[in-house]
Amino acid sequence: MTTPASHRAPPDRSLLDSLRQLLGDRLSTSAAVCAQHGRDESYHQPHAPDAVAFVHSTEEVAAIVSLCAARKVPVIAFGTGTSLEGHVAALRGGVCIDLSQMNRVLVVHAEDLDTTVEAGVTRKQLNEYLRDTGLFFPIDPGADASLGGMAATRASGTNAVRYGTMRENVLALTVVLADGRVIRTARRARKSAAGYDLTRLFVGSEGTLGIITEVTLRLYGIPEAISAAVCPFPSLEAAVDTVILTIQSGVPVARIELLDEAQIAAINKYSKLDHRVAPTLFFEFHGSEASVAEQAETVKSIAADHGGDDFRWATTAEERSRLWQARHDAYYAALALRPGSKGWATDVCVPISRLAECIAETKRDLAGSLIPSALVGHVGDGNFHLVFMIDPNRPEEIAEAGRLNERIVARALAMDGTSTGEHGVGYGKMDFMAAEHGDALDVMRTIKIALDPGNILNPGKIVRI
Amino acid sequence: MTTPASHRAPPDRSLLDSLRQLLGDRLSTSAAVCAQHGRDESYHQPHAPDAVAFVHSTEEVAAIVSLCAARKVPVIAFGTGTSLEGHVAALRGGVCIDLSQMNRVLVVHAEDLDTTVEAGVTRKQLNEYLRDTGLFFPIDPGADASLGGMAATRASGTNAVRYGTMRENVLALTVVLADGRVIRTARRARKSAAGYDLTRLFVGSEGTLGIITEVTLRLYGIPEAISAAVCPFPSLEAAVDTVILTIQSGVPVARIELLDEAQIAAINKYSKLDHRVAPTLFFEFHGSEASVAEQAETVKSIAADHGGDDFRWATTAEERSRLWQARHDAYYAALALRPGSKGWATDVCVPISRLAECIAETKRDLAGSLIPSALVGHVGDGNFHLVFMIDPNRPEEIAEAGRLNERIVARALAMDGTSTGEHGVGYGKMDFMAAEHGDALDVMRTIKIALDPGNILNPGKIVRI
Repeated sequence: MTTPASHRAPPDRSLLDSLRQLLGDRLSTSAAVCAQHGRDESYHQPHAPDAVAFVHSTEEVAAIVSLCAARKVPVIAFGTGTSLEGHVAALRGGVCIDLSQMNRVLVVHAEDLDTTVEAGVTRKQLNEYLRDTGLFFPIDPGADASLGGMAATRASGTNAVRYGTMRENVLALTVVLADGRVIRTARRARKSAAGYDLTRLFVGSEGTLGIITEVTLRLYGIPEAISAAVCPFPSLEAAVDTVILTIQSGVPVARIELLDEAQIAAINKYSKLDHRVAPTLFFEFHGSEASVAEQAETVKSIAADHGGDDFRWATTAEERSRLWQARHDAYYAALALRPGSKGWATDVCVPISRLAECIAETKRDLAGSLIPSALVGHVGDGNFHLVFMIDPNRPEEIAEAGRLNERIVARALAMDGTSTGEHGVGYGKMDFMAAEHGDALDVMRTIKIALDPGNILNPGKIVRI
Repeated sequence: MTTPASHRAPPDRSLLDSLRQLLGDRLSTSAAVCAQHGRDESYHQPHAPDAVAFVHSTEEVAAIVSLCAARKVPVIAFGTGTSLEGHVAALRGGVCIDLSQMNRVLVVHAEDLDTTVEAGVTRKQLNEYLRDTGLFFPIDPGADASLGGMAATRASGTNAVRYGTMRENVLALTVVLADGRVIRTARRARKSAAGYDLTRLFVGSEGTLGIITEVTLRLYGIPEAISAAVCPFPSLEAAVDTVILTIQSGVPVARIELLDEAQIAAINKYSKLDHRVAPTLFFEFHGSEASVAEQAETVKSIAADHGGDDFRWATTAEERSRLWQARHDAYYAALALRPGSKGWATDVCVPISRLAECIAETKRDLAGSLIPSALVGHVGDGNFHLVFMIDPNRPEEIAEAGRLNERIVARALAMDGTSTGEHGVGYGKMDFMAAEHGDALDVMRTIKIALDPGNILNPGKIVRI
C-alpha cells in the first residue's frame, strides 16, 4: 500500500479474507513482498500490488480471478519479474498472482518433440529436466525467465534467428479468462486450421487478456554438433554487413549477436576477458558435423570479405558456456562501467536491409549525448538493444534517455520496423503503440474490452482503455 | 438468387445501384457468375451470392464493405474458389468480393527475403515472378490458390514440414474491417513484441473477421540442391514408422508424403505411371549438395530398416516436377477411379506419435465401408486426408461418408489432434468446433461479435452467432 499510483481501489477486506481462506499463508500482504512483486528489471517506476497470491494450480488462479472479477479488483500475473517495460507494475493496485510455485514439468512427449509445463517452470529448469532425453528448448532471452512469462511477453533472444520466438514455439496454452473460466487454446497437433488462432492471441498479450497457467512447447533434438566463435570487425558497418549477407545466404546460423566497442570493453572488465575492443560478432552453429563445418566455412568467408578474419572458436561445452555467459552478462557489465547507475534498456527491430543504417544513425545520436550507452543485438533478426547507464538521481539524464529512446523508436518505425522486437510494451512503450499500429490499435482495444470488459487483467498495459 | 438458403435478405436495389456506380461492369448479378462464386471444390451444397464485385483496390473493398455494413448485407471474400469446406458459400446471400483481379506483386524486398502482394496473386504467379531473383515462396497446398485465400484459410501443404504453414510465413496483412476501416496488422520486422498478434488472428479467420487485401510474405532462397525420391513400403505401418523416425531424428526433410495403395493405383492410371502398388512415401530434400546427400543417406537407412529399399530418385527439375504433379493430381486421380463420382475430402492432424494408430484404425473403418476411398497425407506434420469417391445421387453414400468423417474427427480429437489440419472449418466442419475447443469456442465467438457486430463477414462460418 506504499505505491503512489492513482485510481486504486481501497483494499477490500472481504476479498483478502476470501483469498486467505483459499490460500492460507500463501497469501501475503507484507510490504516487502508486495514491493518486490511490483518491480521488474527496468528503470520504470515500480507499483506494488495490495496482496500477492502464491498459487499452486490453475483452479486456484481461476478462483482468485473470479473473486477479483466480482469486485473489479485488478489481477496481475507474475513469473520471475525479469521483464523490462514495467509489465508487472500494479498501476492500480490489486492482487498479484505469483506463478513461481506452479513449477512442475507435467509431461514430456519425447516422440512428438513437445512438453507441457506449468507456467512457473523456468527455461533453465526445463532444460535441466530434459537433459537425459536428448532434447532441449531453445528460446533464451538471457534471464532465467518463467515459461509462462516468456509466452505472455512473446520472448525471443539469441536463438530466435534459427528457432523462432515464443510465437513459433508455443503449441497450446491453458488460460484463465477474466471471468475465471479456463480454456485450452489448442490441441497438440503440429498444425491446425480449426478456427481462430487463440494461442498466438494470448502469446504476447502480457497478462491483459488472460492468465497463462500451462504452456505446451515445441522441443528440439540437441544438435549432433555445436560450434561457437567470436570475431572482431574494423567497423560496426562491416559487422552488420556480414550479418546481412549471412542471413541472405540462407546459412541456418543458430545465433549471430553483435556487441559494440563499449559493450566489449564492459564485458572484458566485468568477466575478465581479453576480447579485442572492436565491434564484434558472436556466432553459434548447430547441425551435423558436416553441416556445422559447412556453415562455419561460409560465414568465415563472408566475414573475411568484411575485414573479420580473427575468429576465435569455442567447441567444448565449457568454452561455449563461458563465451555466452559473457554475452548474457552484457547488461550487468554495462552497468558496472558506471557504478551506481541504473540501466534504461530499449529494443527495436527493423527489416535487416535497414539494420546498418538504423544502427549508424543511432550511434550518431548517441555520440552527441552525455549519457554512456552500450549496444547489443540479435542482429540476425534485425533486432538490437541499447542500454543507457543513467544516474537515477539526475532527472536530466532520465529525460535525455527518454528523448533518445523516442528518436530510436521513431527511426525504427520510419524503416517499417517495430518499437519493440522482444521486450514488449508493458507501460513503458504504450505511448508508441498509436504511431506503430494506427487503427489496428483500436482493434486491439476492441479485443481487450471484449475479453476483459471490467479491465481487471493487468490494467494500464499495451492498450489504454 | 437460385440458392435455397434461408435467412437471406431480399436483394437491395439501392445497394446494387451504389455498387454499380462504384464498379461499373465489374459488378455482376448474372446467375452463372453468382453460381460459380458460391461453389468451392468440395461436396458441400453451393450457395450463390446475390452479386459479385470484381475489385481492383483495397479502397474499393473498403467502400463495398461500408455500403454493405450500412445495410447489414453479408460480404464474402473469394480468391480462386479452391477451398474444401464450403468457405465461399453465400449461406445468407449478399455480395461476393472477388479479389482475383487484385493480382499485382507490389514489392519484392530480396535483401529482406519478403514480398508484399495483392490478395489475388496466386502462389504459382508469385513463384513465376520471383524466378530471376533466386527466391521462392514454399507454401504449396496443391491448388494454385490465391495468397489472400491461403492466408485466410491458414493453408499449408506438402512443404509445411520444413517451411511451416501460412501461420509462420505471413509477416503482415492489410485488412478491411467490418465497418470499412483499413488496417495493417504489422510492420515488416521479422519479430515484434508490440501488442496483440493481429496477423495471426486474421490468418485462418476465413473472411469472418475482415477481408484480406494485401499480404506480406516471407521468402526463401532457392536451395542449392534439391532431390526427390519415391519409395514403396510393405505396409502402411512401415511407411508411417519411417516418417516418425525421420522427424524424430531431426532430418530437415522438405516434403514427406504418404499415399496408400488405392491412391497409388489411382495415380498410376490417371498419370500413366508405373509405381509399385503399395503404401508409398514421396520425399524431397533441400539444402547444400552435402546436406542433401546427408539427409538422403539418413532417410534411406531408416526406410531400409522398415522394408523400404526401392528408392527411385528424381534429381532433374523435370523429373521432380513429374513426380510432384502426380502427387498433386491425387484428388482428381482418385475421382477418376469411379467415373461420375464426387469427392468428399476430409483432413485431420494428430501428434505424430499417434499417427500410425490413427491411420490404422481409420483404415479398419474404411475396410468395412462400401464407399471407395483413398488416403494421402502430409505425414511429417501428422496430417492426412481421405477422399471418399461418392455417387452424389445416392443419399446413403453421402450419409455414410458423413458417418465415417465423424468417426475420423472423433478419433483425431481423442488423440489430442485437430478436426482439420489445413482444409479449415468453413461450414463443413463447424459442428466439430464445440468438441474440439470447448469454452475456447466462446472466446472465438466473443471476438467475432466484437469485430463484426453485424455478423456481415462470411456469416455462418467457423462460429455460429
